[in-house]
Amino acid sequence: MRAARPRAVAATLAAALGLASAPDLDAKPVTVADLLAGSPAADWRVPNPDDTLYLELAHGRVVIELATRVVPQHAANIKALVRAHYFDGLAVIRVQDNYVVQWDDETHRRPLPPGVRPSVEFTADAQAAARFEALADRDLYAKEVGFLDGFPAGRDPGTHTVWLAHCYGMVGAGRDDSAESTGAEMYAVIGNAPRQLDLNVALVGRVLKGMEFLSTLPRGSGEMGFYVAAEPPAPISSVRLASDVPPAERTRIEVLRTESATFRSVLEQRRERREPWFKHNPGAIDLCNVPLPVRVVPTASP
Amino acid sequence: MRAARPRAVAATLAAALGLASAPDLDAKPVTVADLLAGSPAADWRVPNPDDTLYLELAHGRVVIELATRVVPQHAANIKALVRAHYFDGLAVIRVQDNYVVQWDDETHRRPLPPGVRPSVEFTADAQAAARFEALADRDLYAKEVGFLDGFPAGRDPGTHTVWLAHCYGMVGAGRDDSAESTGAEMYAVIGNAPRQLDLNVALVGRVLKGMEFLSTLPRGSGEMGFYVAAEPPAPISSVRLASDVPPAERTRIEVLRTESATFRSVLEQRRERREPWFKHNPGAIDLCNVPLPVRVVPTASP
Repeated sequence: MRAARPRAVAATLAAALGLASAPDLDAKPVTVADLLAGSPAADWRVPNPDDTLYLELAHGRVVIELATRVVPQHAANIKALVRAHYFDGLAVIRVQDNYVVQWDDETHRRPLPPGVRPSVEFTADAQAAARFEALADRDLYAKEVGFLDGFPAGRDPGTHTVWLAHCYGMVGAGRDDSAESTGAEMYAVIGNAPRQLDLNVALVGRVLKGMEFLSTLPRGSGEMGFYVAAEPPAPISSVRLASDVPPAERTRIEVLRTESATFRSVLEQRRERREPWFKHNPGAIDLCNVPLPVRVVPTASP
Repeated sequence: MRAARPRAVAATLAAALGLASAPDLDAKPVTVADLLAGSPAADWRVPNPDDTLYLELAHGRVVIELATRVVPQHAANIKALVRAHYFDGLAVIRVQDNYVVQWDDETHRRPLPPGVRPSVEFTADAQAAARFEALADRDLYAKEVGFLDGFPAGRDPGTHTVWLAHCYGMVGAGRDDSAESTGAEMYAVIGNAPRQLDLNVALVGRVLKGMEFLSTLPRGSGEMGFYVAAEPPAPISSVRLASDVPPAERTRIEVLRTESATFRSVLEQRRERREPWFKHNPGAIDLCNVPLPVRVVPTASP
């Protein structure tokens, strides 16, 4: 039943790798590493430094890309908070295993800087639908899934509504029972995709690098993973916009464009597993299992 | 369209809680904690100490329940390895963020004890189909999903085949390109459910307690998350069967029966979210987002 697929895959891979013909199907299957190594420079993008956060923890830097076009008000709020050094000296105060880490002003004593306006933004604006790139695979939580500005997303084809999806490494703006949030309370997903949160809270971006500095934090033993008194919170030395950091101190990162031929080949390689290790071909891929490749560009020596 | 559901849920909850009538729908919604607190003792089971492993790491004990009826040969192998103290002094040698931790004899110098036979066991035997409890929700990787002996599982209704599913906290027997494994190389899932591994490798059980001692381990910087020379592996002081540990040193655990009324209520509560925080009701649940409640029973004072 899947006999026709491998040839189509091979042709796609050949195109992505710039080969004149499809590779020999009996040869060693092409891996994601092969695809990335052979990808043209144009298939990668440099995140805008104005949309990139550096969250500095004791063990290293977490690089977060804000989804500014999807949640413009939250992005503006977070940039205002960051420029006011709102997060400096705060801490990660909650780490719930297989769920989320959260950082905010637990004491609620820090005043919000001017211009921060509580906002909802569970969905993107009407223009975003045109930028949505659909994934062929089904989904349990959304009628359609795919990618929006490089982030995993859902879509309702009836209403043309699009929204970001709670995959591993996605970052959101926490809230209480009111629908609004300001960005002053933030969280990142560190477990199995909690997709039940989709359309319930504004996702504002995703971790591009340094995820392990969040995912390895000690779990809190309080309710919902909050640290109790005996557990020291994980301090945040600072949060900065990359554009406010001297160029020499920036992390040079590139993200594979989801609209690129290389990305489509990566997706197909991960959906139809042809490596000798695989005895059963899954033939499907979950939105949150799609790799969204990121690479660090070495800084040229002076 | 979902107007009829809340009443049915309320009735189910009422039955589970032993109430004479459905609770007032305008009252505070019932939480999972409420359901568990009100559950009858008969809805819980004590895992067989002959099927329970204690993996002792530097920071604490990981309790693993073996799926002995699903993978009898792997369970026999692992018990033989454990009784020969095969894992004592070995280490976790690979921690790949959002994927797996792995422990085994990296040097391949330890001889396997007598009776350990390489085995496949990607699927359960024909009798297991009768024990499968279906989940109503759809799935991307399996035609049908549900629970088998308390573990998340898939089923093909055409062939009546059932198999365990790669959810967070599931434990498997690693292998190389041969389909067979012995249990001498083990792994646990620490990220978004890698369901593409289903039907490709034998899952042998799941972590009931102490998951955080695996999930917070430093990530390895080598390929596939293997620790490199500069990164000390996480030592395993011992692995024991609970039944080989003096009763006073055992961790007293109870697991909610997946066939119980309480479990069905927990499932329904998590599928249809009625708490005030939720503005959008997901109305669906992914197999690997279903909570499988475990509780530690306090030891009576002497």
